[in-house]
Amino acid sequence: MGPHARTEFPALRTITTRWDDEDVYGHINNVTYYAFFDTAVNGFLIDTTGSDIRELSAVGLVAETQCEFLRELRFPADVQVGLGVSKLGESSIVYHLGIFQGDSDEPAAIGRFVHVYVDAATRKVVPIPEAVRAAVTPLVF
Amino acid sequence: MGPHARTEFPALRTITTRWDDEDVYGHINNVTYYAFFDTAVNGFLIDTTGSDIRELSAVGLVAETQCEFLRELRFPADVQVGLGVSKLGESSIVYHLGIFQGDSDEPAAIGRFVHVYVDAATRKVVPIPEAVRAAVTPLVF
Amino acid sequence: MGPHARTEFPALRTITTRWDDEDVYGHINNVTYYAFFDTAVNGFLIDTTGSDIRELSAVGLVAETQCEFLRELRFPADVQVGLGVSKLGESSIVYHLGIFQGDSDEPAAIGRFVHVYVDAATRKVVPIPEAVRAAVTPLVF
Amino acid sequence: MGPHARTEFPALRTITTRWDDEDVYGHINNVTYYAFFDTAVNGFLIDTTGSDIRELSAVGLVAETQCEFLRELRFPADVQVGLGVSKLGESSIVYHLGIFQGDSDEPAAIGRFVHVYVDAATRKVVPIPEAVRAAVTPLVF
Repeated sequence: MGPHARTEFPALRTITTRWDDEDVYGHINNVTYYAFFDTAVNGFLIDTTGSDIRELSAVGLVAETQCEFLRELRFPADVQVGLGVSKLGESSIVYHLGIFQGDSDEPAAIGRFVHVYVDAATRKVVPIPEAVRAAVTPLVF
Repeated sequence: MGPHARTEFPALRTITTRWDDEDVYGHINNVTYYAFFDTAVNGFLIDTTGSDIRELSAVGLVAETQCEFLRELRFPADVQVGLGVSKLGESSIVYHLGIFQGDSDEPAAIGRFVHVYVDAATRKVVPIPEAVRAAVTPLVF
Repeated sequence: MGPHARTEFPALRTITTRWDDEDVYGHINNVTYYAFFDTAVNGFLIDTTGSDIRELSAVGLVAETQCEFLRELRFPADVQVGLGVSKLGESSIVYHLGIFQGDSDEPAAIGRFVHVYVDAATRKVVPIPEAVRAAVTPLVF
Repeated sequence: MGPHARTEFPALRTITTRWDDEDVYGHINNVTYYAFFDTAVNGFLIDTTGSDIRELSAVGLVAETQCEFLRELRFPADVQVGLGVSKLGESSIVYHLGIFQGDSDEPAAIGRFVHVYVDAATRKVVPIPEAVRAAVTPLVF
């Protein structure tokens, strides 16, 4: 299912943790990991394409996500999100993600995140925009 | 500053609490109270006007909010949000809010929430839309 | 992978949506669906066991979650979360979940949520507490 | 009400924005600003005291917060939170905060955040812990 160590990911994004990410068990709540994924993917696309993907005529809607939780995370240390692409289709992109905190090269979580591109107005499936395809091609494992 | 007891509020909205609303101290985090306010005001406006306020040419942007925290809240009991209007201006509405949980008539928090209406495209200040004014007029204390 | 229609779920929990659940695309953000899952499972356990599961000596940590997004959800209508158990192990519970909005019997999303029980202090894997096992046994498909 | 320009704040904390911070109006939702405040204050205290404030016998509970929204914020640029103390009491601390994005020295929002220290077990008001007092004293305007 793709590489797992921090150094094997083609791109890394740093995200700061927040006080209210932690739940009553004193660790970052499982829901927040998906905000890390969502933020890493969309932030990478905006920064790499140099365009505001929210204004494109085709937008990526999330079709499926998945996460395996391996180690607890805590506030206030930053996390790093490793980004790779395990499948680049005609209209969809399957991202493979890792979350890291502290010095360890081993992930605290491994995720899967699937974007399907649709027309912003009609929500019909369309090809991946060229700018997005160019941005993610170097991420393919 | 307006009434404080549950029965003194002209409108009440019920909101379910969520597991991840709680933080490491085992109570609902202060940030979440503002999601209760935001949700109560906008939910009331959508339900009462019968129109999707997100699609109006004038939208309410939040200019100021404030909250005094009086008692801790916990998951999983519902909360009720009391809604009143302490000032209904030409372009702005000042809401006075109370948050309640359990049987007590005394609020767990008291809040203030100010909407200023702007043109959705230009963000210039405009008069409150008629449908919104009609909806909130019965809330004035 | 278990039943999909609303009426096939052994338990249903109602959750109110919030204004800030929606993202820039005008629908409820994918991250929020996991807050629905987390809240439905833990709320069900607290209500059904009649005890505060946060205070038990064994707590359920989330080991894996997954969601398939089938239809968009919008504020302000409530959602219903259907709850079933597809695997009841010695130390772990695999929940099968459906999210519904409006009148349709068809789910807007289908999810998987895995709790592993650990000692609250040492975080070592332990058997599912008896009160929890009794609560979820009727949910097994 | 204390200084307003970025350079006038005694401490600055950088926080990354998230995709789901934005709401349907295409800007960061008002609720999120309070997560910025909460995170900046608690992150500063943990880093500056060098101790885990969540484990102290006295913890800071939030008694009141307030925010004036001056300019819209957008994902994905970072925000900086300026931190100062406008009142350092026996048991309470009043923080004055500013939020900045981009190059401008002018704040996008100005906030107020009040911590009252209580015994972690009994929730009775107690003096501010010495480590916390030492950390925030240089923040007094």
